[in-house]
Amino acid sequence: MSSQGESKWVYTFGAGATEGRADMKNLLGGKGANLAEMANLGLPVPPGFTITTELCTHFYANGRAYPPELKTQVADAVARLEAAMDAKFGEPANPLLVSVRSGARASMPGMMDTVLNLGLNDATARGLALRSGDARFAYDSYRRFIQMYSNVVLDVDHHHFEDILDGHKRDKNYSLDTDLTAADWQSVIEDYKKAVERELGTPFPQDVQEQLWGAIGAVFGSWMNARAITYRRLHDIPASWGTAVNVQCMVFGNMGEDCATGVAFTRNPSTGENAFYGEYLVNAQGEDVVAGIRTPQHLTVAGKIANKSDLPAMEEVMPDVFNQLNEVRLKLELHYRDMQDIEFTVQQNKLFMLQTRNGKRTAPAALKIAVDLANEGVIDRNEAIKRIDPASLDQLLHPTLDPKADRKVIAKGLPASPGAASGKVVFTADEAEQMAGVGDAVILCRIETSPEDIHGMHAARGILTSRGGMTSHAAVVARGMGRACVSGAGDIRIDYKNKLMAVRGVTVKEGDIVTIDGSTGEVMLGEVPTIQPELSGDFATLMGWADGIRRMKIRTNAETPLDARTARKFGAEGIGLSRTEHMFFDPARILAVREMILAESEEGRRTALAKLEPFQKKDFVDLFTIMAGLPVTIRLLDPPLHEFLPNTEQDMDEVAKATGTDPLRVRHRTIQLHEANPMLGHRGCRLGITYPEIYEMQARAIFAAAAEVSKISGETVTPEVMIPLIMTKKEFDILKAVIDKAAAEVKAATGQSFEYLVGTMIELPRAALRAGDIAETAEFFSFGTNDLTQTTFGLSRDDAGAFLPEYQRQGILEHDPFQTLDATGVGELIDLAAQRGRAVRPDIKLGICGEHGGDPASISFCESIGLDYVSCSPYRVPIARLAAAQAALNSDTVKRD
Amino acid sequence: MSSQGESKWVYTFGAGATEGRADMKNLLGGKGANLAEMANLGLPVPPGFTITTELCTHFYANGRAYPPELKTQVADAVARLEAAMDAKFGEPANPLLVSVRSGARASMPGMMDTVLNLGLNDATARGLALRSGDARFAYDSYRRFIQMYSNVVLDVDHHHFEDILDGHKRDKNYSLDTDLTAADWQSVIEDYKKAVERELGTPFPQDVQEQLWGAIGAVFGSWMNARAITYRRLHDIPASWGTAVNVQCMVFGNMGEDCATGVAFTRNPSTGENAFYGEYLVNAQGEDVVAGIRTPQHLTVAGKIANKSDLPAMEEVMPDVFNQLNEVRLKLELHYRDMQDIEFTVQQNKLFMLQTRNGKRTAPAALKIAVDLANEGVIDRNEAIKRIDPASLDQLLHPTLDPKADRKVIAKGLPASPGAASGKVVFTADEAEQMAGVGDAVILCRIETSPEDIHGMHAARGILTSRGGMTSHAAVVARGMGRACVSGAGDIRIDYKNKLMAVRGVTVKEGDIVTIDGSTGEVMLGEVPTIQPELSGDFATLMGWADGIRRMKIRTNAETPLDARTARKFGAEGIGLSRTEHMFFDPARILAVREMILAESEEGRRTALAKLEPFQKKDFVDLFTIMAGLPVTIRLLDPPLHEFLPNTEQDMDEVAKATGTDPLRVRHRTIQLHEANPMLGHRGCRLGITYPEIYEMQARAIFAAAAEVSKISGETVTPEVMIPLIMTKKEFDILKAVIDKAAAEVKAATGQSFEYLVGTMIELPRAALRAGDIAETAEFFSFGTNDLTQTTFGLSRDDAGAFLPEYQRQGILEHDPFQTLDATGVGELIDLAAQRGRAVRPDIKLGICGEHGGDPASISFCESIGLDYVSCSPYRVPIARLAAAQAALNSDTVKRD
Repeated sequence: MSSQGESKWVYTFGAGATEGRADMKNLLGGKGANLAEMANLGLPVPPGFTITTELCTHFYANGRAYPPELKTQVADAVARLEAAMDAKFGEPANPLLVSVRSGARASMPGMMDTVLNLGLNDATARGLALRSGDARFAYDSYRRFIQMYSNVVLDVDHHHFEDILDGHKRDKNYSLDTDLTAADWQSVIEDYKKAVERELGTPFPQDVQEQLWGAIGAVFGSWMNARAITYRRLHDIPASWGTAVNVQCMVFGNMGEDCATGVAFTRNPSTGENAFYGEYLVNAQGEDVVAGIRTPQHLTVAGKIANKSDLPAMEEVMPDVFNQLNEVRLKLELHYRDMQDIEFTVQQNKLFMLQTRNGKRTAPAALKIAVDLANEGVIDRNEAIKRIDPASLDQLLHPTLDPKADRKVIAKGLPASPGAASGKVVFTADEAEQMAGVGDAVILCRIETSPEDIHGMHAARGILTSRGGMTSHAAVVARGMGRACVSGAGDIRIDYKNKLMAVRGVTVKEGDIVTIDGSTGEVMLGEVPTIQPELSGDFATLMGWADGIRRMKIRTNAETPLDARTARKFGAEGIGLSRTEHMFFDPARILAVREMILAESEEGRRTALAKLEPFQKKDFVDLFTIMAGLPVTIRLLDPPLHEFLPNTEQDMDEVAKATGTDPLRVRHRTIQLHEANPMLGHRGCRLGITYPEIYEMQARAIFAAAAEVSKISGETVTPEVMIPLIMTKKEFDILKAVIDKAAAEVKAATGQSFEYLVGTMIELPRAALRAGDIAETAEFFSFGTNDLTQTTFGLSRDDAGAFLPEYQRQGILEHDPFQTLDATGVGELIDLAAQRGRAVRPDIKLGICGEHGGDPASISFCESIGLDYVSCSPYRVPIARLAAAQAALNSDTVKRD
Repeated sequence: MSSQGESKWVYTFGAGATEGRADMKNLLGGKGANLAEMANLGLPVPPGFTITTELCTHFYANGRAYPPELKTQVADAVARLEAAMDAKFGEPANPLLVSVRSGARASMPGMMDTVLNLGLNDATARGLALRSGDARFAYDSYRRFIQMYSNVVLDVDHHHFEDILDGHKRDKNYSLDTDLTAADWQSVIEDYKKAVERELGTPFPQDVQEQLWGAIGAVFGSWMNARAITYRRLHDIPASWGTAVNVQCMVFGNMGEDCATGVAFTRNPSTGENAFYGEYLVNAQGEDVVAGIRTPQHLTVAGKIANKSDLPAMEEVMPDVFNQLNEVRLKLELHYRDMQDIEFTVQQNKLFMLQTRNGKRTAPAALKIAVDLANEGVIDRNEAIKRIDPASLDQLLHPTLDPKADRKVIAKGLPASPGAASGKVVFTADEAEQMAGVGDAVILCRIETSPEDIHGMHAARGILTSRGGMTSHAAVVARGMGRACVSGAGDIRIDYKNKLMAVRGVTVKEGDIVTIDGSTGEVMLGEVPTIQPELSGDFATLMGWADGIRRMKIRTNAETPLDARTARKFGAEGIGLSRTEHMFFDPARILAVREMILAESEEGRRTALAKLEPFQKKDFVDLFTIMAGLPVTIRLLDPPLHEFLPNTEQDMDEVAKATGTDPLRVRHRTIQLHEANPMLGHRGCRLGITYPEIYEMQARAIFAAAAEVSKISGETVTPEVMIPLIMTKKEFDILKAVIDKAAAEVKAATGQSFEYLVGTMIELPRAALRAGDIAETAEFFSFGTNDLTQTTFGLSRDDAGAFLPEYQRQGILEHDPFQTLDATGVGELIDLAAQRGRAVRPDIKLGICGEHGGDPASISFCESIGLDYVSCSPYRVPIARLAAAQAALNSDTVKRD
């Protein structure tokens, strides 16, 4: 972007001169673009202007300096507002007041700063009082401005103002803010100004231009504050995007009983139900609703009833304005073709729209809204599929409380974010992060949450607050993160100092376990059993649409019958990775495994393996039976043998006794098997090369099981035998011969014929490079992206914890490469291997079986290079199904029947 | 190769009908091709025929069966010999006798089987006795045949025959074989035949066709015997090459005093001197010379004098034949343009040539011969360069005995292979291999060696035999392998059973240390100090020629002043890798290093680093001074920090005390730093990212040293600062900024300006793939092929010992990838990185600094992809200089002035 004199930094909206549009979000930020769009739609938007995100970028690229032409452009825009409003900025008799708000490209709720009522000073406050005829309103506005401006722009801690206000209320014996008169507020204002001067050494600024530029600077400055940086990191928002600044004429919801302010969703953001849903407060400013200081009222009578509220609905109190708002709601939804999150203010019975944006919603709500919108014809099915964040399905798949389970409900709050969670109680975000870091499930309990708590909310399984509504910070953020949340459980008294909370005689201390149900708002003592979720309704509908679109198959990584059944229920189309070693740890088998490892000779190993063989066969019989003809890929033994040996001296002695081995031999063998870098050691097919009898036993068990299940079920079982950690073709060929021999033996012994494939993991860079050779004999490749990531990056997953957080903090790695496939490094190797493999064997089966198989971005990569399937853990199968459909839509590789 | 009826499997030579040529070595084997070539040159070659190597391949490809047409082709060839010799195969009155010898493409001395005197049976032996008029000769020949054939073809152990012969000699009180009369031999023959029948259950074959086909089958079979397989593995000869079989009319060196047999080199194979050099035995067959049973006589008077022999020279005994042989010598050398190793037999004063081939020689001899041949105009200088195996230079570069050192000489043998070696005495090849496997230097002591000892000779530092001459098995093989060897130290009595050797009252037990000097033949007790070799004369001449040819620069890996000086002496043109961590282990510094690691804060680390900085600066001052303006690449700290911490509890307590740290803290930190896979852990630039102060200190020390040395010496010092283990460009950029800042600070502080480069190791697959990005800011790449091999193969060098030998045994890996660069895997990544780097930065400096930098095959690869330099350990610098010249010659990338 050029920063020459000609650059346009300021875009106006409202009052018949709107320069922006909704699709200019990158330039104007979400808020600015949507304000312009609403103005274009003819909705009542207070006029204003937006300083672009490019100015933000210029600001940081030039040592926080503005381009010289900005002053004029802002002055011109302010002049336009003065003309539109017939008022003057800083003119005591008829002052123009504005709000100054941030507005980034991606929504970052509460992350950055806002200043309302700007333009007030001693003179204009007096003028406003006279002109409005409401001195109380004018001074209330002024004291709000001082408080906000001092906090946001001048960095004076807000407790100074709270202390002063509390002191005044105590002196006057007031309980509510609304009890204060205009004179009271004037007296508070004097104390506020004194406090500012005491703290800063200079008086509170009376110059409205100084106020305006101070606020603009503060908003741009807030883009780089710590919580904004954290939020961007958590939500993958690049720092380079910048924020815009919106300067807008003030409208007042706090001018009297015919005034109000509110926030609403065009559909229910929790359930997705197509019903107007929102809250408002009479005689208040916007911040009051969000802050959760006063308990908000519902917009609709239905909402009031559903939430058992005693307070009148807006529909009852201001029916005309409500109807007007409802029309705006319908208009916006049709226009944006999605559920909207809107903010409005009613000033003396006149409605003003302050914001619209696509509303955040729970996963079930997202599903319902997408399916409903498609059924209503507002969007098509492909659009509905694209609307769902696959990762959000996770929330639908996890257990909910078993309704038949005993539960000791100690309190009830609002059902702010669905899902049930149990965990140890903690009272600070730092503790939450710390304990989660060592593997504890925690429930973060706060009086209310603020942006400073983000990291703790992220670390916690669930969030419980004693204050705040359904649109409170805690509720909004928890829904976005997919954390269970119960908000506003007002009976609970939280005592940060003593690290405990008390409710009706029950005391819960830090570390005690509680369960919260974010779908009912219940808070329970102890851990409550859970049940599996239902996967019907909108979920089934949308997944059906997705299945009709996707090209790639979805398999699962499973070795237990339970996992295999769960995965089938979630729609898995086969097993992509069955890790046979997981079966070795079974207590009934580990002894024979250890006997095998401790054996001194091939003969000794064969004796021990013979004991394992019936178990292995049974494993495969179970899997083949459950998968009923679907493909099953079985990986032969992979980990280094020492993983199966005991660690402590005592355990070693026990093993020695149980296996009838000399304890010294056990110790010696353990030492012998110790490796400097076991990840790169004697494992995978290297075990097969040195101890072929192990793979021979496993292959025999696989084929015997296949023969048996084929015979019993009549279904053709075609096992896919997978050799891990191949680095050369020769290695593969030697082991394929072992497997082929076992197959021939089983065929001869059982008289049963069966088909099978022999393939390999591609999990070493060399295997990827030599994929052409290997494909001459390998019938399938499964990309083992965990190990391929470790070797390509030279990065041990077990050890990366010491520095990977620092790498992410410094932006060296955008994503954890073990979560999201590194498309430009590891991905190039996979692409190359796929190409080389196909060049030699055009019908080679290609899949992926690392953790990345359940990650939407990685699935998208797999689609882009044309893999045949992805395989992931059972609970991620639905995510993969949806992500694969989205990937197909984005690559235009959708399945054609 | 086709195996149709038309295939030609048999090629004749001699007697005016030679079908082969020297350049048909692949088809006829070395021996067969050279016999044909000698016949073509008109030299006296007994007629014969060669069965091709393709037949060998066919034999193994068809379950050890021959193509049907072979019988006829062999029968035709035998008929031709019968006609030429006017004798008949199997005809009692006038028998044709033949030798059957193997002859592979590459020389494999003593590895495969040979049968002489074939065609003898009871009847033909009688006929030969009558016809030759020498019954003793006839029966001596027959008993030799039975013994050889039974051993080679029928697999009857040779001790049966030795026992019988010894028994006869005892009975008759004979001491020498020559004492036996014709009648004695007839009696021995009867016993031999009985022994064969007893061992095999069938009589010794009398049918000469059965004998012939048995011998042919045995030679082809010997291609796959264990020692041939071992030899091929050690010498990188593919099994697919196969061997040919040569069937040749016998000529007899054992027909009386006017007969002789001998082996010779056209120049001295030990020194390279241009003098006829060889040994012969009167009245003997060829095997007698090689077996070392009788002490051979010298060919020339000069040789006799030089070796202080009492026995007459051939020059004296048979001057005419000697002159004829000397003419053959000169003719062959001019024809082959290289030193030849020849075998001859004199039958009744008539000379026959049985073999010629390029002679094996010591490294100094190879140098002298190549330089002399070039100076004589026989070959050109490029050819001379190509003639030297770069790896053989190793022998010239290692220390020889310090002449001033005390030495207790206990015996003297022949100076069979030059170089001095000390080590523990072992008496079997297996023990040699075993002890060398655990890192012991060993001297293998044998009465004489046989092909079964090859693996032990390879494992040993030196070989000592009590029997055998300069052309004995031990001597020939040791020279080929570059092992020091003293042969025929007849005073030493070796007692295998009691594992000791005794000489003149001194007893040396297994495990005692001895030193041998292969250049003088001395055997000494204990370890004798050594001195550096002289690198002048032919060495300097040839290296000068090589330097004039090569394109790539040769640098060294060095961090100590000693290494740097040694490398310069060997011709290093800079330092390619200076591992700064090696400097950290110095006792004077390790405490500060540990203090740094144990520090709880950046401040603590900075305090400790400040103590290290003067040491580091001094290190670099030394290196820059020694390298005097040549480029010096310094790698910043690379290994994981725990490598610097103590391992034992006691050491930890000492460290705690010395650093004033709580011992618990030391233990805790040690545990904290423990990693599952340190090779892939918190090391390399990951340390720089998390503790930038370390790299900052190192960079400051480098630049301060550069400034100081530049100022003092007036030479421009341009340090190349190298960041290890880079995986992304961002990582590199962050650390480059740290280095640039340090440079700016040093410039400001010293007022000295200097240039420097900042580059990176490419040692992770991802870095190779992203080389294009990285080259945007990196000014050089140095390929760290050790780690790149580890990560590309997923193979820990420290742990591979558990299975790599099995991998090599099964032929999965042809070479140890840590010794010879894997061109098709790791090499592809390097090539790709080089291309991508150059595409972005055409003048990017590219080098290699892994162990592969000193390996000729790997150097050839580096030339093929156009790297700018290789860096290797100081002692390998001359090897690299020569290998780089050869690579340039082979790639036609020679330097043009």
